[in-house]
Amino acid sequence: MSKEKSQKIPEVTIRRLSAYHRCLVRAREEGMKVISSSTLAKNCGVNAAQVRKDLAYFGKFGIRGMGYYVDGLFTDIKRILGIDRVWNMALFGAGNLGTALLFYKDFLKQNYHMVAAFDIDPEKLQKGAIGGVPIYHPDKLPEITHREKIDIAIIATPVSKAQGVADQVVQAGIRGILNFAPTRLSVPDNVVVKDVFFTNILDNLVYLLTASR
Amino acid sequence: MSKEKSQKIPEVTIRRLSAYHRCLVRAREEGMKVISSSTLAKNCGVNAAQVRKDLAYFGKFGIRGMGYYVDGLFTDIKRILGIDRVWNMALFGAGNLGTALLFYKDFLKQNYHMVAAFDIDPEKLQKGAIGGVPIYHPDKLPEITHREKIDIAIIATPVSKAQGVADQVVQAGIRGILNFAPTRLSVPDNVVVKDVFFTNILDNLVYLLTASR
Repeated sequence: MSKEKSQKIPEVTIRRLSAYHRCLVRAREEGMKVISSSTLAKNCGVNAAQVRKDLAYFGKFGIRGMGYYVDGLFTDIKRILGIDRVWNMALFGAGNLGTALLFYKDFLKQNYHMVAAFDIDPEKLQKGAIGGVPIYHPDKLPEITHREKIDIAIIATPVSKAQGVADQVVQAGIRGILNFAPTRLSVPDNVVVKDVFFTNILDNLVYLLTASR
Repeated sequence: MSKEKSQKIPEVTIRRLSAYHRCLVRAREEGMKVISSSTLAKNCGVNAAQVRKDLAYFGKFGIRGMGYYVDGLFTDIKRILGIDRVWNMALFGAGNLGTALLFYKDFLKQNYHMVAAFDIDPEKLQKGAIGGVPIYHPDKLPEITHREKIDIAIIATPVSKAQGVADQVVQAGIRGILNFAPTRLSVPDNVVVKDVFFTNILDNLVYLLTASR
């Protein structure tokens, strides 16, 4: 798939692919061989036409009148999303949220491995590891990034530290950032940042609640 | 604002309004009286035309050739988003992630109050409170929902418990759910659910990393 082609695909389609992937994981666990677009749609809370349209971006996947081979579609979506390999992640800031992420089990199921955590708190460094993930001082970032082949940085520091950490992360050659610190990070164009701002998500929820009253 | 009108506004616009709100909070802290659409855009990582287009959905806000009154726009966006009042939240499942959310300070700044937590673990119930938030057994949900006027349920239970909790929450009359359990919840049409699935967000990040390589 060329860069040009892939970049035209709407972000909502990618988000839905990720949801289809989750449904296909369950379908495989249940031993299903073939799944209809309407079943897939129902399990993901969209309509069947939307499923067919989303999958059409990436070529023909369906078997006319039947649906999709579960294994085939599962493998194809993994490849499209780039999750057909292991992605190594490092956590920055082992506070309450950071610690919760170190214990988060759902990452592993989807080929996301937490390989290192960074914090400056001497007590945490003394412990050596949280949730089985080794903790290092940020001074070690360049060395650990190289040794552990870190692809993604998860920033869960206070707002005041987030940009500094992002700068160090980028300098170490990491190109993907999942940012939980409620502030916009400034990074070079070749670095991808995804923000998870809980209050923005709540704002959105509250807007929908207000609008539908 | 009529129900019909508000529902036509794209979700991305609402998400950006929430980002503008965050920038305006900072602008007010810095004592700015007027902000240009280009400054607002730059601080939020969008372009000025987008800012003007987004705000145009809700009426005329700008001062020609100058920009926007910071206080006026701040108040208007709060009203549009429905965050010009306090929203009371209850947490379900005080595990690692749930506990992190009980300590999360950014909610308070934006009129989100965590008023109760529910868990079935006798040890946690014995403690009485985590992060200053009282913990109750789910048996008390109807009583506490009424007494504390709970608007929003945050579900941070294991997947296996999430649908059961959602059913109880809906029965108690709560209409907004922020769901961290990585499974789709089935709820009546008048209930709004926002999912925060960390692995879906990572899938999205990884797709962009792969596509831009």
